[in-house]
Amino acid sequence: MIRVLVWNEFKHEREKENVAAIYPDGIHATIAEFLGKEDDIEVRTATLQDENCGITKEILDETDVLIWWGHMAHNKVPDEVASLVRDAVLEGMGAIFLHSAHHSKPFKLLMGTSCNLTWRESSDSEILWVIDPAHPITRDIDRYFCLEGEETYGEPFVIPNPDKVLLIGSYSGGEVFRSGCLYERGNGKIFYFQPGHETFPTFKVPAVQSVIRNAVRFVAPTYRQVIACPHVRKITDDEPYVIVKK
Amino acid sequence: MIRVLVWNEFKHEREKENVAAIYPDGIHATIAEFLGKEDDIEVRTATLQDENCGITKEILDETDVLIWWGHMAHNKVPDEVASLVRDAVLEGMGAIFLHSAHHSKPFKLLMGTSCNLTWRESSDSEILWVIDPAHPITRDIDRYFCLEGEETYGEPFVIPNPDKVLLIGSYSGGEVFRSGCLYERGNGKIFYFQPGHETFPTFKVPAVQSVIRNAVRFVAPTYRQVIACPHVRKITDDEPYVIVKK
Amino acid sequence: MIRVLVWNEFKHEREKENVAAIYPDGIHATIAEFLGKEDDIEVRTATLQDENCGITKEILDETDVLIWWGHMAHNKVPDEVASLVRDAVLEGMGAIFLHSAHHSKPFKLLMGTSCNLTWRESSDSEILWVIDPAHPITRDIDRYFCLEGEETYGEPFVIPNPDKVLLIGSYSGGEVFRSGCLYERGNGKIFYFQPGHETFPTFKVPAVQSVIRNAVRFVAPTYRQVIACPHVRKITDDEPYVIVKK
Amino acid sequence: MIRVLVWNEFKHEREKENVAAIYPDGIHATIAEFLGKEDDIEVRTATLQDENCGITKEILDETDVLIWWGHMAHNKVPDEVASLVRDAVLEGMGAIFLHSAHHSKPFKLLMGTSCNLTWRESSDSEILWVIDPAHPITRDIDRYFCLEGEETYGEPFVIPNPDKVLLIGSYSGGEVFRSGCLYERGNGKIFYFQPGHETFPTFKVPAVQSVIRNAVRFVAPTYRQVIACPHVRKITDDEPYVIVKK
Repeated sequence: MIRVLVWNEFKHEREKENVAAIYPDGIHATIAEFLGKEDDIEVRTATLQDENCGITKEILDETDVLIWWGHMAHNKVPDEVASLVRDAVLEGMGAIFLHSAHHSKPFKLLMGTSCNLTWRESSDSEILWVIDPAHPITRDIDRYFCLEGEETYGEPFVIPNPDKVLLIGSYSGGEVFRSGCLYERGNGKIFYFQPGHETFPTFKVPAVQSVIRNAVRFVAPTYRQVIACPHVRKITDDEPYVIVKK
Repeated sequence: MIRVLVWNEFKHEREKENVAAIYPDGIHATIAEFLGKEDDIEVRTATLQDENCGITKEILDETDVLIWWGHMAHNKVPDEVASLVRDAVLEGMGAIFLHSAHHSKPFKLLMGTSCNLTWRESSDSEILWVIDPAHPITRDIDRYFCLEGEETYGEPFVIPNPDKVLLIGSYSGGEVFRSGCLYERGNGKIFYFQPGHETFPTFKVPAVQSVIRNAVRFVAPTYRQVIACPHVRKITDDEPYVIVKK
Repeated sequence: MIRVLVWNEFKHEREKENVAAIYPDGIHATIAEFLGKEDDIEVRTATLQDENCGITKEILDETDVLIWWGHMAHNKVPDEVASLVRDAVLEGMGAIFLHSAHHSKPFKLLMGTSCNLTWRESSDSEILWVIDPAHPITRDIDRYFCLEGEETYGEPFVIPNPDKVLLIGSYSGGEVFRSGCLYERGNGKIFYFQPGHETFPTFKVPAVQSVIRNAVRFVAPTYRQVIACPHVRKITDDEPYVIVKK
Repeated sequence: MIRVLVWNEFKHEREKENVAAIYPDGIHATIAEFLGKEDDIEVRTATLQDENCGITKEILDETDVLIWWGHMAHNKVPDEVASLVRDAVLEGMGAIFLHSAHHSKPFKLLMGTSCNLTWRESSDSEILWVIDPAHPITRDIDRYFCLEGEETYGEPFVIPNPDKVLLIGSYSGGEVFRSGCLYERGNGKIFYFQPGHETFPTFKVPAVQSVIRNAVRFVAPTYRQVIACPHVRKITDDEPYVIVKK
């Protein structure tokens, strides 16, 4: 059973009518709903409104995959929470950062760069092209899928060179964007996925749900543990290493 | 002085009127002309029509950067010529493969994959977006440049994961393509650059010329030598390694 | 069930007494034996002595993971066999190249480089250090394991920059070597693993068996298919693409 | 002229006699001395003892390459200083982190991982092997160089998969370590180099000086600028993009 925690800022949906019309219970509820239908996935949610953002070391210890959506209130997330998330990823927890979470504190901590990107408020349509058709995350997609409307993200996207680019988006206005990027950091796998602006029903699109579902299974750890980097001492050839107790 | 050899299949230009109208002396002549204006570059050309394709070990030894264009006659290039090119790249010679040279024998030898791609005969326009704006190859380009017409290349493009993707093309029909890809193999640098279908005056476009000029300077070797992998023998601690003569 | 084909040159074992003493039925038999004990693995073997090296397209179609050991007779393997192996890997077949298979034709075809390395005939002992302790291939190993004797391989090793280096070997004579290297080519995963000189009982060492067992499971395809790169035609917006029949 | 700033914690040298005996004026002074002999390099130094660590935005704006050594007082460096360094690297400033600077704040910020490693207090000798003999950083080294004594660093080293591993160290106690690692982050190049424990005269060893000298030239920016990620607006096809003023 893969234990997923869907985290959402949950502000637009409560403050803007047009967003509430699409996601009345919040983006997290929509994501939790389609993931919850899977036999091998169990879902909880947390939001910025919860105490300590709904995130503690204990909760992360019981989370296999954290999904993160945030946009207008990244700075309201305490640094300590961001550090907890980073540490859990380094231990092996999978993480999926959606859309504007490119500027979230945990993503920026893990990347080490500004994570800036070019953008344009638009109602451009987007085609997401599969670059790596055999990858477990894109396998159910044929050659591409379309979104009728999305906010336009453009290059440059100031991230470390991804381990793999799985999807590239092309917008009707002409821009392109590395829309599906994979990383490993410590024992953890990280997937950044670009679609999901709050004013479009992106998380109700079957292909988007399919990518997220696949990504949950791909980034879920089969192993989780702080990487041991012991302070060692060599004694003899027969008993070559001893861990030094402090 | 960077010594460039521009290799061209030189068949379309001699056999098809519409191509001859654009490149009356061949694509190689057009490329040689704009590169030849640079103070630090000297250019020679060779074509499939030359004896042994105009390529010998001696010629490659005197070549810093090989530029390759081919399309309909890849199989007319002898395997031995392709191997000579690969070996020269491994020693440090730079190589730039243009457009349909993705299916050329030397490129496929160096990549180890099929190098297949999806394509569409079209007169789509293309926007080439800069992914890495500080890279020496893209530095003179602002955020993007446009081509009025190009053959449409699409993903998947069956290449090894590039060391860096410098440019992504987006076509008016919606496709995207990793249009500028960097590799290192042995001591040599390799740049694949997608634009350049023979029915369009692509190699007369200033931004295309700028990318090729930059690429010549970037892939040119500062060091060229077969990587020595000696058969060694350890003698004593004072004289730890001796190369074993056969 | 993972269908493994263990391929062995099988010459040293028949021609040299000291090798026959260690591997009386051949290296392939020893590998097949320990893999065959696993419930999820079924093993066949083939050797250079078999007709067409025991390798046809049909056999590879029924192979999930090919393991390859060769040393003194790489050139006896026909180019066609090497190409069949490469094509199967691009479709998704996993491949594990052991020790001196760094110079085998299929490995060199897939890498595109000389795959030369420095070496020393020695009876150095070797310590293999785990670089990526959470990786499925190294997970059962603690921090390192030791081999009492191995042929010394040294850097430079002229391979493309690996996707991941999982193990680095250090020899008692002081050399180091990238002993466990992962690649993806097309849909296929490739693992190069350095230990396994024919004059040492390396393939009887539990840690070596563990790495090979793990690697079989890791490189086994969950998906296998030629990557489709269709020639397409755009018709209308409603029916945007049609595959062009030739 | 490459403007180098050598930063040193400068505590061991003032507090411990055995270190002061080797580096009476501090590690920074030794590094500044050998770099300062180069015609194309000009060197300044700064230490933890300087106001604000001797680091301001203005100083970094005039720095092409920052070299960092720190060990026992990483936490005395204010977070703001670490952020300034990271931002300068993203703009294009080169950075070289030496030895125990693996745990410095700026390096950890740029990597996004714990940067933990295994270690052993020892007086092991170390052999540093060249993995990439044609790289500008290792070019002057033959196959390897030796250090009579160094602190032993071991794997796992919890860093993102390097863009390139240029050097691997092997210690007389048997450990190995990825001793020369290259990264790019934003417009900046980063080189981590393992040798340099304060109790050994490592920075007086010609080969170590050669690697640092080469690295200064390699990571020095040819271009420095914040990567522009504008907020854009599309108007017409003729004038497609306008940067949105806030």
